Order: sequence, then structure tokens, then C-alpha cells
Amino acid sequence: MAIEDIIPVRFQDDKLFLLDQTELPAHDEFHEAGSIEELWYAIKMLAVRGAPAIGVAAGYGMYIKARDYVKKENISDEAEPAVVKSFITTLEEAKAYLDSSRPTAVNLSWATAEMLEAAKKAGENTGVTCGQIVDLLRETAENIRKTDYDSCFALAENGLSLLKPRMGILTHCNAGILATAGYGTALAPLHLGQERGYGFKVYADETRPLLQGARLTAWELMKSGVDVTLICDNMSSLVMKKGLVDAVVVGCDRMAANGDGANKIGTSALAVLAKEYGIPFYMFVPTSTIDLNTPSGDEIVIEEREGSEIYKKWYSRPMAPAGVKTFNPAFDVTDHKYITAVVTEKGVIRPPYDVSLREIMGEK
Amino acid sequence: MAIEDIIPVRFQDDKLFLLDQTELPAHDEFHEAGSIEELWYAIKMLAVRGAPAIGVAAGYGMYIKARDYVKKENISDEAEPAVVKSFITTLEEAKAYLDSSRPTAVNLSWATAEMLEAAKKAGENTGVTCGQIVDLLRETAENIRKTDYDSCFALAENGLSLLKPRMGILTHCNAGILATAGYGTALAPLHLGQERGYGFKVYADETRPLLQGARLTAWELMKSGVDVTLICDNMSSLVMKKGLVDAVVVGCDRMAANGDGANKIGTSALAVLAKEYGIPFYMFVPTSTIDLNTPSGDEIVIEEREGSEIYKKWYSRPMAPAGVKTFNPAFDVTDHKYITAVVTEKGVIRPPYDVSLREIMGEK
Repeated sequence: MAIEDIIPVRFQDDKLFLLDQTELPAHDEFHEAGSIEELWYAIKMLAVRGAPAIGVAAGYGMYIKARDYVKKENISDEAEPAVVKSFITTLEEAKAYLDSSRPTAVNLSWATAEMLEAAKKAGENTGVTCGQIVDLLRETAENIRKTDYDSCFALAENGLSLLKPRMGILTHCNAGILATAGYGTALAPLHLGQERGYGFKVYADETRPLLQGARLTAWELMKSGVDVTLICDNMSSLVMKKGLVDAVVVGCDRMAANGDGANKIGTSALAVLAKEYGIPFYMFVPTSTIDLNTPSGDEIVIEEREGSEIYKKWYSRPMAPAGVKTFNPAFDVTDHKYITAVVTEKGVIRPPYDVSLREIMGEK
Repeated sequence: MAIEDIIPVRFQDDKLFLLDQTELPAHDEFHEAGSIEELWYAIKMLAVRGAPAIGVAAGYGMYIKARDYVKKENISDEAEPAVVKSFITTLEEAKAYLDSSRPTAVNLSWATAEMLEAAKKAGENTGVTCGQIVDLLRETAENIRKTDYDSCFALAENGLSLLKPRMGILTHCNAGILATAGYGTALAPLHLGQERGYGFKVYADETRPLLQGARLTAWELMKSGVDVTLICDNMSSLVMKKGLVDAVVVGCDRMAANGDGANKIGTSALAVLAKEYGIPFYMFVPTSTIDLNTPSGDEIVIEEREGSEIYKKWYSRPMAPAGVKTFNPAFDVTDHKYITAVVTEKGVIRPPYDVSLREIMGEK
């Protein structure tokens, strides 16, 4: 299947379609989000997930709201300041409403802010019509999507430069198409490699407790034709020791100035194991994820989640004794000393990261 | 709760009771195994599990068969060679039948062989009655149980000599009471330490895919009052890095002559992580588990199990795409270089294991 058919946010015939990821891997169905109310619900229910994908969807959501408002009020040709102002106010309300669907998603509020700013700036021009602003918003939403697509593609190319045909690759969680509007991040070179006949053999950790590896990564790699084998997280040591892994590729939720990277819980174990077995460990980090204001991983606060995710969530009955104590951190920090290279959309960087990260961010 | 109340094989008032481990952790109920047919079924259905526990139960099973046969045939006082011979033949059939409940369980066929040999040897004495042989078999079964209990207790004492009060301890799978007729192996010092007020803080890996840590280890440690926290396997690196772990304790299914130890999948990852974080890694190895005829871990064949255990077994619906490829090894081998000490019932041994293992086995 072509990458375009897997991308979870699709804009076609002036309509927004979202892959319902809550139904994966059993069913893969796209549903139209025909209003910001429907989009709000889709984000809230995690039908659309992954920071970049949510941002792209929210951009289109703002456009849909603007288009339908102008149509309903019949103000397409209006350039009257009071009418335009009222239109902008509607968009401000739409932004606040969409942002409330997932308050911690930075890309969401970033994308809605980009859309609102574009509308406001255009509205300052004398004589601009509401219809023209709507056209501009469609372009802006499309640009947000295209920027993410291009960034993923650059990550794919840069990542692929580190890999060779027929390599065995281990990955964790889902840093893939399903989290973006393009090839993904850590999975991007695997999809691109597949298109170019690289014949990778990929091992996907199931990624407890939320099983993103089993439900999402296995699904999208199978869809694009990549040879993928599902394992439990605790099997990675054996798979590496058997010589089946030539590289580890993982995503990143936040990278500190010294190169320490926070990612899905379990990532740091893979990094230690990879070092021990002499296997390169590559972290895929869009520059939007690099936070030079955070000196090191020690300053990154790790989210702790409900223990019931461990012993109850997916099961038909509790799989641990009633009243059991749990510890359920969602992320861990991989020390920079274990990271062979950081792959960004602007290029591949190497240690010392405290220098190379500043360089790639344009801060010397 | 006292250890005696948790031990899964109980012989009381001339009756054999087994804890139904398939119902753990939701229900803990002992059921009588009143015949070898009921015992066969309990072993087959994994109601009783763990090599030592199965062996102990099988010993009592042989006794029950002998007792009931002699009673039914009314031959308690018979010393007639033909009658005794027929009695022994019945025991031979009982052994073959019990052994068939789990053909790969070495302790099972070992225990039934011990029982049969005891009966045969006694039967060679002129004038011995069937009733006397039955009495001897009860003693033999009791000895098998007591030997296991004493071995576990020695493992507990030897293990405890390596630990200090209030230590944080990480463990994997279930090397506990539930697998033995005593304090367990790797969990033995944790239970004994609890009795002595050590106040350990234990982290139990859930142990995918069969969840022995969540279902069994968490259950038995909570029962004996140990402070236990359940984590996913992929969280051990973070728990270690945070300084919460002062020692790792694990069991062993088979140890080669050079000290390489096969144990539940995921054990080798913990060993590598422990070394990286400077934490001692202790493997608990009853001498019956040491196989000097196997030179190294490379010669240990790893059982591979059904992939559906990973994506289907416990779930209400499949958690991976239909047709997904899987790799589901049940064990991995921990290289001896990561093992700080091997704890046996005869004492604690240290590297070089190729020397110390032979010494403790009485082979210089």
C-alpha cells in the first residue's frame, strides 16, 4: 500500500478525513470530520493521535470552521471591518474550543495559533474580503500539512543514509506515519527503504502497557509491505544477542541541550543494550522537539499514569492481585552517551551533542 | 500470612491439597487431589506448576495410588510375592500415567521414579507386607517434600546473607513459593527477610507474555507482607537509574558449566542493565539445576512458543494485525560475565564459575 493511503489525516475534495486509530489494528476506517465539534471529539477520543498529526488536523479544522461560517452568514464578499472582526472573533473561539480537546498537545495549540494569526494579519488589510481570508486559511492549513510531510521525508532520507539494504532493525513504540501527516519519524526511513527495495527485517517491540508497537507500528509496517516481526519488550536483548539487529531506531518526545532524549518508557533500556551489544542507536528528533532551554534529561519531568493500564486496561479480568501497588511512568530519558547519532530533518548530527545541537538550531 | 499457608502443595490428614494457580490472582483456593486422575488433570491444566512443586505433588500422588489400591484390594497384610508384584506393577503404571501429564517436567519423572524405586527395593525384602510398603511410600513422599523445603530454606538463608535491610530489590517472573514446596528460590530470601523485619522494597516485572510476575509474584509477596510494586518489563531501566534497586534476584532453569544461566525471557536484559548501573545481579540456582555436561549457554536450546501468547492470550480481542509475524522465545541465556554471584542451597559461589561450579558439585 502506498504511504499516502496510510497517512491518518487526509484532505480531499475540501473535506477532512481521519483514520480512526482506536479501531486499529482490527479495522482501518477513515471517517469525515465535517465540523470542529466532530474534530474535537476525534482528538479527545484519540481517534487521531501523535503531535504532528493532531496539529495538521487542527489546521484543517480551523479552515473548515471559517469556510462554513462565511457560507452560513453569506459574507463571502464582505470587506466591512465590523463583519471581518466578527469573523475573526469566531475563529478565536474556534481555536480555544479546539485547544481544549487535548490541552497538553503543543502542536495543537501551535497550529491553531498559526491559523488564527494568518487570519488576523490578513484581516488588517483594508478591503480584504472574508472569502479571501477563507482561501488564505485553506492555503495555510495545506502549508502546515506540507511542512510536516516534507520534514518527515527529510527524516526518511537522512535516516536512510545511515542504513544498508537487508539490515535488521529494532524499533519501539510508534514513531510512524500514524503519528504524522507523512512518513513518520523513526519509521520514516523504513517506509522509504521499502519503496527503494532495501528489504529491511524489522523487529517491533509491543511497547507495554499501551501496546503502540503491536497495535500501530506492526499495522503500518505491514501495510507498507515492510517485513515486521512482533516481540515483547523483554525479548530485545535476545534478538540483539542473536545478531538479528544492525540498528535501533526510535523517536523522541523532547531532547535536552546536552542530547539526553525523553521517549516512550523502555527506550533507555534498548539504548543500554545496544551499546553493550555494539549496535548503533539512532534517535529521530524533528528540530521542533529540541529544547535548548532544558540543560539535561534530569530536568525533564516524567509523566506517571494510572496503574490500571498495567494490570487491567486490555484484559477481560484484572491480571494482578486487588490492591497491588504499581509504578507506571510513561517515558524515560535516554542518556546522550548511548545515542550514536541524532537524525533531524536538517541533517544527521553526532556527539558532542551540546555543540552539534546548538549548531543545527542555528545557535553557536 | 505465614509461608506455610501459601505453599501450593499441602499434605494434611492424609490428603493432598493443591492451590489452583490458574485462578490466581483473583481467587486462591485449595482443592483436594483425591486420586492420581485428579492430580494428572491438575498438572496438565497448570493448576500446579513449577518444577519442584510438581515433583512434590507427584510423590504424594504415587503414595495415594498405593494406599488406595491396597485398601481396595484389601491386601494390607499380604506379603505374598505374587500379590506384592502385582502391587508394584500397579505403581509402575501409575508412574507412566502421571509422567504423561507433563512429559518435559524433569522433576515429575524424577519424583515418581524415586517413589517407584523405594517400593521396588522394599518389595525385594522377604516378608514385607503391602501395608509396610505403603507406609514407606508416605515417608518417601514426605522426604521429597522436606528435601525441597530445606533446599528452599537454605537458598533463603544464603541469599539473605547478600542483602541488607531496607534494600530495593528487582525480580522477574516467579521464582517463588508458588513454584516450590517451600520459600521458593529467588524470592526465598525476600520472604525470610520479611519474617525477620528486613523491610525490603521489591519491584516485580510483570513478565510478558505470560505475566507470571503480575499474577504470581505480586500475589505471593503481598500475601507474605512484602512491600511489592508491579512494573512493566520495560520500566526496569528507569527504576534502576533512579537508584531504587540495590540488587536483582532471579531464578534459573538451567545453568551450564561455565555459569551461563537460562531463565525466563527478559532475564538477560536485566543482567546487562544491572551491570551498566553498577547493581549486583544474583541468580538463584538449586544444584539440581546445574548441568556440568553443558559447556556453555550456547548449547542450551531455547523453547519457542505460540505467537498468539503475545497478541491474543489474555486480551478480549487481538491486539496486533491479523497475520502478524511473531518471535516468542520462552527463555534467554544470561552470560556468566553479568552474574555477580550464584546462590545455591549449598552456599554462595563467585566467579570464575567454571571452577566454583565444579567445586560445589563435588567435581574438582
